[in-house]
Amino acid sequence: MPNILLLGERVERDYAAPLARELAARGVAARLAPDLPPGEVDYIVLRPGAVGADFTPFTRAKAVLSTWMGVETLVTNPTLTQPLARMVEPSMTRGMTEYVTAHVMRHHIGLDVHVHGLKGAWHRTVPPLAPERPVTVLGLGELGRSAASTLAALGFPVTGWSRSPRELPYLARTFSGRAGLHGALDGAQIVVILLPLTRGTENLLGAAEFARLAPGAVIINPARGPVIDDDALLAALDSGQVGHATLDVFRREPLPPDHPFWHHPQVTVTPHIAAETRVATAAAVLAENIAGVERGEPLRDRVDRAAGY
Amino acid sequence: MPNILLLGERVERDYAAPLARELAARGVAARLAPDLPPGEVDYIVLRPGAVGADFTPFTRAKAVLSTWMGVETLVTNPTLTQPLARMVEPSMTRGMTEYVTAHVMRHHIGLDVHVHGLKGAWHRTVPPLAPERPVTVLGLGELGRSAASTLAALGFPVTGWSRSPRELPYLARTFSGRAGLHGALDGAQIVVILLPLTRGTENLLGAAEFARLAPGAVIINPARGPVIDDDALLAALDSGQVGHATLDVFRREPLPPDHPFWHHPQVTVTPHIAAETRVATAAAVLAENIAGVERGEPLRDRVDRAAGY
Repeated sequence: MPNILLLGERVERDYAAPLARELAARGVAARLAPDLPPGEVDYIVLRPGAVGADFTPFTRAKAVLSTWMGVETLVTNPTLTQPLARMVEPSMTRGMTEYVTAHVMRHHIGLDVHVHGLKGAWHRTVPPLAPERPVTVLGLGELGRSAASTLAALGFPVTGWSRSPRELPYLARTFSGRAGLHGALDGAQIVVILLPLTRGTENLLGAAEFARLAPGAVIINPARGPVIDDDALLAALDSGQVGHATLDVFRREPLPPDHPFWHHPQVTVTPHIAAETRVATAAAVLAENIAGVERGEPLRDRVDRAAGY
Repeated sequence: MPNILLLGERVERDYAAPLARELAARGVAARLAPDLPPGEVDYIVLRPGAVGADFTPFTRAKAVLSTWMGVETLVTNPTLTQPLARMVEPSMTRGMTEYVTAHVMRHHIGLDVHVHGLKGAWHRTVPPLAPERPVTVLGLGELGRSAASTLAALGFPVTGWSRSPRELPYLARTFSGRAGLHGALDGAQIVVILLPLTRGTENLLGAAEFARLAPGAVIINPARGPVIDDDALLAALDSGQVGHATLDVFRREPLPPDHPFWHHPQVTVTPHIAAETRVATAAAVLAENIAGVERGEPLRDRVDRAAGY
């Protein structure tokens, strides 16, 4: 009977019951607790945000499983040497794709003027159609592929960019690697960032990158805040080179109330809501992964320490 | 060489050159003019909004071709007995689908609060996912099918309603006829109206229909204004039974500046921009239809006078 440590207050509250249920459904009788002697722990389930822990005492742990997809705070912890899995679950991917679709469509058809209201003025402006609106998606992992294929199905010509080369039939163009970044951004009217935060993606988008976009382009970042150089973004917004930024993630969260992003007229701040892990589906993913390891299968969604995600 | 009358100032300005070009590309040499002796006219191309004409003198006309999809002002003209075609063109369908997708996603993820801005308050509300959001599409013609299949592909459970029964694989449920209307509306959280205006659809949605919806439901009407009973809608908005109405079409257009829709906090007015006919694609459709008739084929997209569209 494996011992599973639920690390962090919300993890125990949210996951104890559904994870036990999902494990039982897979024939795994487990002991789940928020506190266990480190030497007896077989699996650790945790929220990365809550942890700056020392993982050295967990000498028997077969795996550390994150309830989040973004694991940048874990891969940089030198004491965490156990196999590490990040959360890849269908509801999170769906939620992210819905957020991206909504914000792309919002900017595409010029929704804001109508949300604010024309107040009696019958002022007709007809937007271009999707095939006339080039969109670039940065990152072609689980989230990037879902967003890119959905946007392509809606008619947008989608350019994709990824760390290593990828061919995806629904993409109009693909670029890869640092050398391909500027080509991927050239003339884009909407850029969607769906990259993990790694040493390779920190401050990836700065003044030189914004300069490649179509003037007045829109940036949508529901991935990780530090992928963007904030000061360069504010400068590009003020010059008009970037027309709008919709940001769900920030270097510091909650975003401090006096941060300029809150008050900039061309910035939309959403409070890290784009891709919420849904406990019901996430518990099933965790249980399936643990049950698999117990059967001798390799850990799924395992983090590549060298890549950082 | 057929003589084609371009009826209405904007029709001649917009269509004379592209229609001549598209006809020539199909081997049809035609004479196009804004003024021709009625007895010599072979085809009439017109905008229905601009016309209350007497069609009796056009004794030789093989067809009247509308540049609009909505032909309610033409089918009720007793002097128009020539074969009548409405405009069905891919850009209009695409534009309509984009408008519907944008406004459904807007309401689905609760975009307005973020467009207005949280102004420093890190207030997280995570919306439900598309499979938990029942949407009903009224009308399953060209426009309704395009919107319904797009929304279904985004994950929404879509109920469809049409005048006569239709089975479409992407729909969760289908209803038809007046008897099926209330079933189609039961529990819907978002209703998209894509019906033509006919005697059968005028005032189709009133108090009894709004009462079937989920409390706080959203109405999106980019079809024709009179399909909704305006007073009943305002009452349902004030009671909260309807949470929001996004309206692109009205009994009188432009919507008079003092109309309550302009100033109601739960109403979004867009100025008939959802589905603009694009001249380039529409000219090709008109030319193809005229060329077909010249070759002896039946008129396409022909209006059924009894159905009214």
